[in-house]
Amino acid sequence: MTSGLRVVPVEDLPEVRPGDVLADLLAAACSIETGDVVVVTQKVVSKAEGRLVAVADEAAHRALVEAESVRVLRRRGRLVVSETTHGFVCASAGVDVSNVEHGWAALLPVDPDRSARRIRAGLRARTGVDVAVIVSDTFGRPWRRGVTDVAIGCAGIAAVVDLRGTVDALGRELEVTEVCVVDELAAAAELVMGKSASIAAAIIRGVDPAWLRPSSVNAEVVSHPSEDLYR
Amino acid sequence: MTSGLRVVPVEDLPEVRPGDVLADLLAAACSIETGDVVVVTQKVVSKAEGRLVAVADEAAHRALVEAESVRVLRRRGRLVVSETTHGFVCASAGVDVSNVEHGWAALLPVDPDRSARRIRAGLRARTGVDVAVIVSDTFGRPWRRGVTDVAIGCAGIAAVVDLRGTVDALGRELEVTEVCVVDELAAAAELVMGKSASIAAAIIRGVDPAWLRPSSVNAEVVSHPSEDLYR
Repeated sequence: MTSGLRVVPVEDLPEVRPGDVLADLLAAACSIETGDVVVVTQKVVSKAEGRLVAVADEAAHRALVEAESVRVLRRRGRLVVSETTHGFVCASAGVDVSNVEHGWAALLPVDPDRSARRIRAGLRARTGVDVAVIVSDTFGRPWRRGVTDVAIGCAGIAAVVDLRGTVDALGRELEVTEVCVVDELAAAAELVMGKSASIAAAIIRGVDPAWLRPSSVNAEVVSHPSEDLYR
Repeated sequence: MTSGLRVVPVEDLPEVRPGDVLADLLAAACSIETGDVVVVTQKVVSKAEGRLVAVADEAAHRALVEAESVRVLRRRGRLVVSETTHGFVCASAGVDVSNVEHGWAALLPVDPDRSARRIRAGLRARTGVDVAVIVSDTFGRPWRRGVTDVAIGCAGIAAVVDLRGTVDALGRELEVTEVCVVDELAAAAELVMGKSASIAAAIIRGVDPAWLRPSSVNAEVVSHPSEDLYR
């Protein structure tokens, strides 16, 4: 068991408040090495960035979801699936009331790729170490029960790894080839977080160094309506 | 870095042929411990189970995709997104020609949960070790570019972990609560496989022992049309 990946929770991150500098809190809470991928949940990024809004009641919450949506795709009961200004399609436009103080809701970061770049630059400034950063969130998906974590922002790592043109083990050109590695890394990180344990970050060590390059979720993962079979 | 997960590729699995007993090949290729999750790709499971069909040309391939589909959801050019007999929604009904000999296609296993149970029982019989088994496949998804690996079958592990009713760090009941851990584990495994390196299995060590219980993807992940907003 010497090769492969390690996925380790960051256990000692304190409760995050508006104005906190996440890179400082992360640098104090864990030890990072060059090439690590640091996955941070949207919730603490939104808190640090002050993306908290008072919601007096369910009507206020509903209005907030509408305001954060550019288009509603599906409704059923209290569930609203909509497209956010970022182009994400998710429940409640990412407006979230869990792990937030009662009477408040957390909105998605304005630009989660920029959030990831800022955390990455802060960690480099404080530690001298070059890591990749992923901001993750928990999304449902069509046709399959259960939620999984995906990447809503990234920095210093390819969002999608294009294997097009490479050949498989039998020497044939591969057909399905663009792997969304940042979503897979976000999913792997979620496995060590635990929804109720208040672990909001994880470190993944051992990713392919070839993946470490400038990239963004917005440019590489969010699909354009013109190419999207589902909008 | 002592807690958390390790994700390790199984490097020494030989080329799999119809009639091979996967549990034998896996037991010879890697060392497993109680509580490990063994993730095996659909491709080798389909090969071992003889789910290979000759496809003379593109018309034959198209006919095969139709035959494997109960319903076509979307078409664009050569891309067909359809629902399989299992209830999976994926490209080409899971019919796959990569990493298969030229002129042949691999179909999905008839019952991937049963495939996982068989591998699990075989590993226990040969090694005395209780592991969980996930059969994974590579699916696209709406609204996001790139493919990720998901679970199409499982044994000995909860497909979905229900955190409903548990409380978050601030003592409030959680809202989004059913996490599809088998999809997240399949995604984590894909990260060490590499499409062209012909690595078809991985071992994940360190998962929460509370997740290790009888389950199936069919019962817990495949959503019923009645509850599905997207069919």
